[in-house]
Amino acid sequence: MSGRLIGIGVGPGDPELMTLKAMRALAEADLVVHFAKAGNQSQARAIAASHLKAGTPELPLFYPVTSERPRNGSFYRDAMREFYDAAAAALAAHLDAGRAVAVICEGDPLFYGSYMHLHVRLAPRYPTQVIAGVTGMSGCWSAVGAPIAQGDDVFMVLPATLPEPELERRLKDADAAVVMKLGRHLGKIRRTLERIGRLERAIYVERGSTRAAVMMRLADKGDDGAPYFAIVLVPGWEERA
Amino acid sequence: MSGRLIGIGVGPGDPELMTLKAMRALAEADLVVHFAKAGNQSQARAIAASHLKAGTPELPLFYPVTSERPRNGSFYRDAMREFYDAAAAALAAHLDAGRAVAVICEGDPLFYGSYMHLHVRLAPRYPTQVIAGVTGMSGCWSAVGAPIAQGDDVFMVLPATLPEPELERRLKDADAAVVMKLGRHLGKIRRTLERIGRLERAIYVERGSTRAAVMMRLADKGDDGAPYFAIVLVPGWEERA
Repeated sequence: MSGRLIGIGVGPGDPELMTLKAMRALAEADLVVHFAKAGNQSQARAIAASHLKAGTPELPLFYPVTSERPRNGSFYRDAMREFYDAAAAALAAHLDAGRAVAVICEGDPLFYGSYMHLHVRLAPRYPTQVIAGVTGMSGCWSAVGAPIAQGDDVFMVLPATLPEPELERRLKDADAAVVMKLGRHLGKIRRTLERIGRLERAIYVERGSTRAAVMMRLADKGDDGAPYFAIVLVPGWEERA
Repeated sequence: MSGRLIGIGVGPGDPELMTLKAMRALAEADLVVHFAKAGNQSQARAIAASHLKAGTPELPLFYPVTSERPRNGSFYRDAMREFYDAAAAALAAHLDAGRAVAVICEGDPLFYGSYMHLHVRLAPRYPTQVIAGVTGMSGCWSAVGAPIAQGDDVFMVLPATLPEPELERRLKDADAAVVMKLGRHLGKIRRTLERIGRLERAIYVERGSTRAAVMMRLADKGDDGAPYFAIVLVPGWEERA
């Protein structure tokens, strides 16, 4: 009798933005798994904390390297692959023992989430359910109250790591966009948006759906410092009310 | 003493995919507003039905024209603008009377939702809160269990109404994509994906997070009939496990 894998999106940060489905699945889990940077507490766990049943065993998975490191090197790729292989093997042992194994994830599990590395390894072998969550970017544009896309808008999610000419080409080609993983790339994003005449409408958001949220017009931000998970919103809404 | 406007995302279809925050805001609302096609029940209302407090007044807003009609004509634009102006005026009267006015929306209120037409008209004048929801597309890729985007993927949302050459150019330029508002455009999407070698990985989804969900490889779908709100997922995940 095999167990089941459940990928649970816990939303962007505010515990109230968890779904009822996530809350119930958590309450029924035999094991709760979460990802975290070594030495840190899992963000997903912090979000879900008030819904965790006391006494449910937990398995934290600590990334061997940080995602802020260059992703192209084979060192990074190999280390991550070994990490996910080992994590999947650990989960498989619990699944083989018939347990309901819940992997909690910030935002939505299958949208830029670490969970999918476990999913592709385990879903072919075990009954699997994925519970959609509110994404981090939805949390951000909702906190700001910025209509992001409508009608026949072309909407894009762009990593800030793209080279400047490519960023410019893609931003020009998008009605609405979210630029993510800002970190040390904010200056480049600001220059690019200014050059194509869209800086005025761009919004900078840090920790969008938490109490520590920072939100401002990018044009008003006095420096180019930004944490890795900050994002820039480029709303598509023009004068089409 | 003025009231407050609350835009509430009720998620993609499964009532369990509503957030706790949405549920609580609904329970506190003095008036619940929802959009529907004339003669139809509101989808958002159907999703939220079990969380509506008995006796809470409701205000259905019936679209004057269907969104399946060409959007470029001035007839459509003018009719919709008058409709939203009148709806905003009706809500303003309740807000002026000090009421908490909740507009419930399928998916996420500020992501391709009708709510934003009320938001841009009313948020400058009244205290406003937007409660993010799980989007329809998250509901779809979660139901299918398809990892949609990861790492530094460029992700795009494309309306199926785009001309075929533009669709081809944009799909080639995206690591991952969702094509929405399929309706009578499915044949064009299929041809385009086949031409650029991505038909094999594309997934067709209809009513993603409801019990009536239809999900299959697009290549396996025997005809080109599709409802307006069906979508095609083009996952970005390759062999990068």
